[in-house]
Amino acid sequence: MNETLQVIASRRSIRKYKPEQIVGEEMQRIMDAAIFAPSARNQQKWHFTVVQNKEIIDKMARIIQSNALNSGEGHAARFMSTPGFHVFFHAPTVVLISHITGGHFIEVDCGMAAQNILLAAEALGIGSCVIGFSRFLLISQEGIDLLRELGMPEGYSHLCAIALGYPDGTHPSMPPRNRDVINYIK
Amino acid sequence: MNETLQVIASRRSIRKYKPEQIVGEEMQRIMDAAIFAPSARNQQKWHFTVVQNKEIIDKMARIIQSNALNSGEGHAARFMSTPGFHVFFHAPTVVLISHITGGHFIEVDCGMAAQNILLAAEALGIGSCVIGFSRFLLISQEGIDLLRELGMPEGYSHLCAIALGYPDGTHPSMPPRNRDVINYIK
Repeated sequence: MNETLQVIASRRSIRKYKPEQIVGEEMQRIMDAAIFAPSARNQQKWHFTVVQNKEIIDKMARIIQSNALNSGEGHAARFMSTPGFHVFFHAPTVVLISHITGGHFIEVDCGMAAQNILLAAEALGIGSCVIGFSRFLLISQEGIDLLRELGMPEGYSHLCAIALGYPDGTHPSMPPRNRDVINYIK
Repeated sequence: MNETLQVIASRRSIRKYKPEQIVGEEMQRIMDAAIFAPSARNQQKWHFTVVQNKEIIDKMARIIQSNALNSGEGHAARFMSTPGFHVFFHAPTVVLISHITGGHFIEVDCGMAAQNILLAAEALGIGSCVIGFSRFLLISQEGIDLLRELGMPEGYSHLCAIALGYPDGTHPSMPPRNRDVINYIK
């Protein structure tokens, strides 16, 4: 089978990581893949912070958990109240994705860049998980200040995060996919 | 070099296509790739219509062009007023992507599915171009009615389209990428 199709089919969200940090050269190839995604009118109004510092990752996880528990959002709070919960699953690397505020089509552009990150990682044997809960950083001043400190440019908004690291444990099976979301007109 | 990384790096937006239709089995593998993308809470609130009928593609192109020219949006109108302009570049296949209206994180999900379509196509030697201008279908009743006829479910909104077909002509070079959108925190 075509290797790229195989990578697309086999990539799963990984929720358990080895503590070893991703090799520098591999991380750079993953981030190259991110910016090779197309963007509307080639505007590239995205920004990526690659956090590889355990203390900062843990600090972000604590802020997210605290903000989510205080938010009153039932789904998030149920997740976050699990004992020992860590929103990034103790991954050694977390990529923070942000984009120009109010940019047209920019969430699609960032989604395309995100998928390139996931697939480049998978191709290198590195596990990944998209973390939408990182949006809870935005609901406290401490979280916003931290995003700025980590390099999110002025006029940009945080969108989501991606946890990355070498997978620990067995490869998860694919959750069911609905095929009736596709129709053909010939 | 790793084949998947190579596919990610070499994919370009193609704006000239051969008239030959994409082989059915290949089209199916491309759409499999689309729904293999992750989605928030595995909700898969996306929808794809694969249009492979030239008359319908040309009709969509006419509606988009007419609506764009009437919209007063300078950028769109400049593109559309080029003599002989065809918003889908006469591609033999157009995938229409839509999603549940107001869904949280859904544009990112659709962006990830879109990138899988682009990369699966590239891996099979099929060219692609994301067409954001398809949103102009939404600003006339004729366009909305057509989207419904083509299978966009009730309660869903059109997001963008992807033109697909075998490339005609030389492979474009990569437009410049900004590397200063990435910073590392170690």
